[in-house]
Amino acid sequence: MGLSFHSNKESLYLQVYDHYKNLIMEHRLPAGSRMPSLRKCAAELKLSRTTIENAYLQLAADGYIIARAQSGYYVTDIAAQDPVSPVSRHSNLPPVKYDFASNGVDHESFRFDLWQRYLKSSLRQSERLLSYGEPQGEADLRQVLADYIRQRRNVNCSADDIVIGAGMQSLLNILCPLIRDKKTVSFPNASFVQGSTIFADYGFDVRYRNKDCDVIYVSPAHMTKWGEIMPVSRRMELVHHASENGSLIIEDDYENEFVYFQRPTPSLFNLAGGHGVVYIGSFSRLLLPSIRLSFMVLPPSLSRQYAAVAERYSQTASKVEQIALCQFIRDGHLTSQTKKLKKLYAQKLKELKNVVQNIFGENCTIQTGAAGTSLALTVPYTRTGLELKKEARMNGLSILILEESADTITLLLSCSSIATDEFEPACRLLKSNLI
Amino acid sequence: MGLSFHSNKESLYLQVYDHYKNLIMEHRLPAGSRMPSLRKCAAELKLSRTTIENAYLQLAADGYIIARAQSGYYVTDIAAQDPVSPVSRHSNLPPVKYDFASNGVDHESFRFDLWQRYLKSSLRQSERLLSYGEPQGEADLRQVLADYIRQRRNVNCSADDIVIGAGMQSLLNILCPLIRDKKTVSFPNASFVQGSTIFADYGFDVRYRNKDCDVIYVSPAHMTKWGEIMPVSRRMELVHHASENGSLIIEDDYENEFVYFQRPTPSLFNLAGGHGVVYIGSFSRLLLPSIRLSFMVLPPSLSRQYAAVAERYSQTASKVEQIALCQFIRDGHLTSQTKKLKKLYAQKLKELKNVVQNIFGENCTIQTGAAGTSLALTVPYTRTGLELKKEARMNGLSILILEESADTITLLLSCSSIATDEFEPACRLLKSNLI
Repeated sequence: MGLSFHSNKESLYLQVYDHYKNLIMEHRLPAGSRMPSLRKCAAELKLSRTTIENAYLQLAADGYIIARAQSGYYVTDIAAQDPVSPVSRHSNLPPVKYDFASNGVDHESFRFDLWQRYLKSSLRQSERLLSYGEPQGEADLRQVLADYIRQRRNVNCSADDIVIGAGMQSLLNILCPLIRDKKTVSFPNASFVQGSTIFADYGFDVRYRNKDCDVIYVSPAHMTKWGEIMPVSRRMELVHHASENGSLIIEDDYENEFVYFQRPTPSLFNLAGGHGVVYIGSFSRLLLPSIRLSFMVLPPSLSRQYAAVAERYSQTASKVEQIALCQFIRDGHLTSQTKKLKKLYAQKLKELKNVVQNIFGENCTIQTGAAGTSLALTVPYTRTGLELKKEARMNGLSILILEESADTITLLLSCSSIATDEFEPACRLLKSNLI
Repeated sequence: MGLSFHSNKESLYLQVYDHYKNLIMEHRLPAGSRMPSLRKCAAELKLSRTTIENAYLQLAADGYIIARAQSGYYVTDIAAQDPVSPVSRHSNLPPVKYDFASNGVDHESFRFDLWQRYLKSSLRQSERLLSYGEPQGEADLRQVLADYIRQRRNVNCSADDIVIGAGMQSLLNILCPLIRDKKTVSFPNASFVQGSTIFADYGFDVRYRNKDCDVIYVSPAHMTKWGEIMPVSRRMELVHHASENGSLIIEDDYENEFVYFQRPTPSLFNLAGGHGVVYIGSFSRLLLPSIRLSFMVLPPSLSRQYAAVAERYSQTASKVEQIALCQFIRDGHLTSQTKKLKKLYAQKLKELKNVVQNIFGENCTIQTGAAGTSLALTVPYTRTGLELKKEARMNGLSILILEESADTITLLLSCSSIATDEFEPACRLLKSNLI
């Protein structure tokens, strides 16, 4: 073959990938035809077998070719299909162009290369990966987390009081059976579906904003979806009231990292001196949402109760990811990533507010808080929210509806998944759907 | 520096790693001293920065050096500590030399390099990883799983009926609330702690071997820990009885891949025509135990109920690992890994039985089944099991006690984590502890 590949090593396999992808999409390698063997292809292109294999694996991952055991790779019928990405091939909807609804992580901010290196380093600890993980979570990660939250949130605890799990629900599935003597639980509002679902599953009576419940679930840096935070005075009040009533507080410290426009507020765990508060932290807004890793800090009495049953619950979080995260935090990357994201989101949110104000003008009301990555926008609208949502989606816009009345609608607009220079076209498109 | 590194590319960073590890352990780089910067070290050794960085990351992962933000890497006090591996540094016990208790995966059998390539390929799908996963599990993995279990276990279902989760307990945490009208659950015996814990947490009345319960949990290829399997006649009987009584069967198909000495038996799900049976599968015995990935197949009525609440439960399994596994199965590696392990374990178990027979002679009773990776060994012993366990552990032996009477003890010996040529020394060491 008369091909020349640039010797930029990083992307050599991608050049091979592109070469074959084009041949396939242009029907020059028709569906069903067999790909050259790795050896033959490597010899022809004068590249290493590994490079070819990486290219083939990527082609297979993206649906261009398929492996048949003991036979080789074959071209799929992808070229005959419609030209959307292979992942969304099953749906009839156009791809999402602007995603206002996502609370994912900013596309530019996550260093995949860095995280990949930590995962690779973790995979090298083969002995450790050949056994099941510790039920409570890997000991070294728990130690690192204890240090981290002591420094950043004044949460003083030992690694023994920390339980790791694959997301907040996994932790509540361990906590709820421990507190089965309690009957009622209060949530800030109905939007905390994930938490309230688990409590309801265990037979708790779920209420809203009721400080006399046996369990009080709060998210002090995320009181509303548009980033209102709980002032210190109310934090103190809550801690005292709960202590007098013997209620347990569950402090979900979600997005505490993104409190921009005032000084960071102390954690309830710290204000309560570590008693009567379960502290929950997670990394979905700091790393990848697709990494399922959360942790809870149990107060002394619950920690003792947990220790007695710990062996009965298997760990849910991936051990590879736990090991990688441990080293990632040790090396200071979580701290720098948090700093970077905080700065970025503060700027983006401010800019989004400006753009919305300019485009929607006097007819709109904007609510913002001191934290988070979203603002709430209320505009006149007379049709149903469902209609708006469908129509917007057909136009490539993903939106989240907070509230609707007969003549207005309130949307939650997140700045995290849209690039700053796309705020304007995205808002204009949104406006055209609202008419 | 007058060093020469072999140009075998794979291990270049490991050579750098070893070089520094030795300097540190020989106190030639004392605790607290700063490591040369990446740039400087790369220039001196005439190697790439990436190679040096990989070596440093590995040194840090193993506790030889530690990163300080914006400053560089520093040597830890590891050389002053006792010479056990950094991971087990906190414990006073000697390292485990022979692990009879583990149901991990055979050390030689898992291809880390291959799995690493799939994880890397998965990490390249950055757009996909920047959002939360589908609550039910990634659609393409569910499709691949549906195809896989149809081919291998005659379980006919659609991808819509499959729910993915981080381990069996995560799945039961979704299933139990769906079947809250049921009150009693039967398990084969008391060793199924992980399953029975979750049912008890939701208020179920847990019983053993009681076929008149509302829910019947069985593991047909793992009726006892030493691999007894449920014969087809009893499977048929169970399915009929459950159908007449309106009981729900939960079929945990654990280790069905390791049925050696007879033909593979049909799944209950298949025998029941897909009604009244929840099928649970997992990969901990086939891939890495540290990968938390299980799935359940819901029968039509439960699948509809689940669909109505699916959005309330967030996915627990890592998205990166889901994407990697999907492609790994598509490319036929799960099939070949299963085949390889089945052959290997059948040989190892047979050999372990021979060695045990030779060493323990007439004084012992050996129980084996038609499946699994373990045998049960009963020998005369008059002290307590706890004493034996402690003493064996001090001698570097990890064992699992199944039963004890006044003058005998029954141990479960797993062949999976010990190499075949170590069966003899391991059994001799065990015997010396039993005297």
